[in-house]
This record gives sequence, structure tokens and C-alpha cells, in this order.
Amino acid sequence: MPHPAEPGSDRYHRGNLRQAILETARSLLEEAGPGGLSLREIARRLDVSAPSAYHHFASLDAIAVALAEQGFDELTERLKAATGNLDGRLGPAGAAYISFARANPGLYRLMFGEGFQMISKKNLAVRSLRQRAYATLSEDLRKRLPEPDVSTAALFLWSLVHGLALLMIDGQLDAAADPNTMIDKVLRLAGTGLPRRPAT
Amino acid sequence: MPHPAEPGSDRYHRGNLRQAILETARSLLEEAGPGGLSLREIARRLDVSAPSAYHHFASLDAIAVALAEQGFDELTERLKAATGNLDGRLGPAGAAYISFARANPGLYRLMFGEGFQMISKKNLAVRSLRQRAYATLSEDLRKRLPEPDVSTAALFLWSLVHGLALLMIDGQLDAAADPNTMIDKVLRLAGTGLPRRPAT
Repeated sequence: MPHPAEPGSDRYHRGNLRQAILETARSLLEEAGPGGLSLREIARRLDVSAPSAYHHFASLDAIAVALAEQGFDELTERLKAATGNLDGRLGPAGAAYISFARANPGLYRLMFGEGFQMISKKNLAVRSLRQRAYATLSEDLRKRLPEPDVSTAALFLWSLVHGLALLMIDGQLDAAADPNTMIDKVLRLAGTGLPRRPAT
Repeated sequence: MPHPAEPGSDRYHRGNLRQAILETARSLLEEAGPGGLSLREIARRLDVSAPSAYHHFASLDAIAVALAEQGFDELTERLKAATGNLDGRLGPAGAAYISFARANPGLYRLMFGEGFQMISKKNLAVRSLRQRAYATLSEDLRKRLPEPDVSTAALFLWSLVHGLALLMIDGQLDAAADPNTMIDKVLRLAGTGLPRRPAT
């Protein structure tokens, strides 16, 4: 005969609690940023004890790495969907990248190491996820550009979309400007270079 | 007749302690990143009590804002020195920007809001410092470009140097590449745009 359980102890099957921890952590990340992640707060929101959360993740950093992994998977999916259809144009992939970052600002910052100690194993794990995403981008450029240009072009593009994404997340954009128009204009400059002073 | 003071209580004059707190906070920032700033650790390193540190700064966030202000002052100085001599070329200013970020990675991340709660008064204070730095950059472009191009060009350039600076700080660059050569090549693409696939 069922009896009243200790709060939360029976609420989740093993896999379900793992999933619930990740979902709750992700909400918290978007509310408070990477610095606001806390295992105690995650456990409180799920109404489970901290030890039962530790059963699934050895540390808060382990949760953060799992979230970063989710993030890179989702970003890669979006980039593939954007580039697959439009051979030879970089704009759609750039716009997809930035739109992912704007929709998931806390996650995006985490994916670039915010909230980790700068020199840590977990940060290195996240760095290797980034390297994989970068390899995907370079692979795509390799189809369009002669080999000696690929590495510079990849770094140029990644810098541009990464910087723009972060400036937008940080609210640096002129509030009067339409974000999508600005993104489009900036990405177009990636193809043409800066305009020049008109000849006098 | 002098008597042995409580540890640290007499060591600093008012202004000196303020300065010493900032210097120690800045070292800590470079060691541990914005998330590693801690008033307790700063006080410990200076061998003073936390209350005497609080006498100069109401909170850890107040120290962080003061550091960000220092950072933007130093960055602006470097940009002015780089652009002053070389009218019409953007490369030196971009290289100066990135070299500042690489020399002060913890500070640079702090200047862009890392370590602050995303929605906070202190974060807004730092954002307004950023806006000032951005205005300096736009002012400089206004001398080179027709007015309708200025805002897009400023956002394009800022995105590029911000993104490249962060990717380099994060160690994303190919370890075999010479950093200054890469910076130079990427900044050159800002002027020319991406290379195109050779005509077939």
C-alpha cells in the first residue's frame, strides 16, 4: 500500500530527475546568468534534497558542462539548417547564430566559459565543445574558399558573430534600431568590407 | 609612544587603503576571473578587516564598478594613442583594442558585465561606461565615413574586435598561429570583406 513519501523523494524516476535538474538549471541560468547557478536553488525549486541532485551530477560544474553541451548541440543544429539550403551565402548562418544567442543569453555566455574558473578542467571541457563547433564552421567555409583563406575567414566570421551576439545580449545596441535590420547590415559588411570615404 | 597596532588597522591612510583594495582586487580578477572576486579574500590579502574595506566600498559590486571604470579609462587612452597618429587607417586602433583585452583578460570580461547579475544597477552603471567608449569609436569613424554609414560601421567594427578579443582570451585560436599575424589578417578583412570563391 502506498504511503506518503518524504517530500520529493519519490517524485522522479532516475532519468526524469536528471532531466528535471537540467531544465531547472537552464531556467535559472536565463534568469540570473551563469554566476547565479546554484545547486541549492535548483534542489529547492525541484523540492528534492541536494544529495539526491548530487546523485546525478557530481558538482554544479558538471551541470554547467551538460548545459553547455546541450547549447552547442542546439547551435550546431540551427547552423546546419541555415546553411544547408543556401549554398554560397553566409548571411543566413550568421543570422541563425546570433538569433540562437539572443534567444538563450545565459546559456550562450556559459558556452563561452562565463561562470567557470578560467583555468579549470570543466572550462577545458567546454573549450573542446567550442572547438568542435568551430570545426563545423570552418568545414562550411572550405567549400567556398581556397584553402589558404579558410582559417582567417573562419576567425573573422566567428569573431564578428560572437562579438555582435554578445553586444546585443548586453543591450549595447541603439534602442531605436531594429535588431534584425542591424544584424543584416552588419553581416553584409562582412562580404563587402567597410565603406570607404567618398573620393574628393 | 607608539604601541603595536591591531594587524593592518594603521597600515593604510584612507586614500592608500582605497587604492590598495583596487590593486588587490585587480590582481585577484586576473587570477580567478570576475566570478572569483571576493571581499573577504581582498581583505585577507591586505591583512585588514572586512569592515575597514567596507568603509571605502559599500559592496563588492562597488569595487567591480570602480575597476571597470579604470579599465575603460585605460582602453580609451590606448585607442586615442593608436588613432591619433594614423589618420584613415583602422588597423592600429583595432590592434590596440585587442592588445588591451589580451593584457587584462579578467578586467576585460568584467567591463562587459561578467560577474554582475544581468539585471542590476551596477551592471547598468558598467553599461553606461561602455556606451561612452562606443561613442569615442563612433566619433572617430565620423571623420572617415559619410554619416549614414557610421552606425553600422561602428557596430561592425566593435563586434569584430570584441569577438576576436574574447576568442583569443578564451584560447580559441589555433595554438600554432602567431597571434599578431592573425589579428592583422582578420582586421584586414574588415577593410576588404571576405575573399570570394575564385571564378570557375
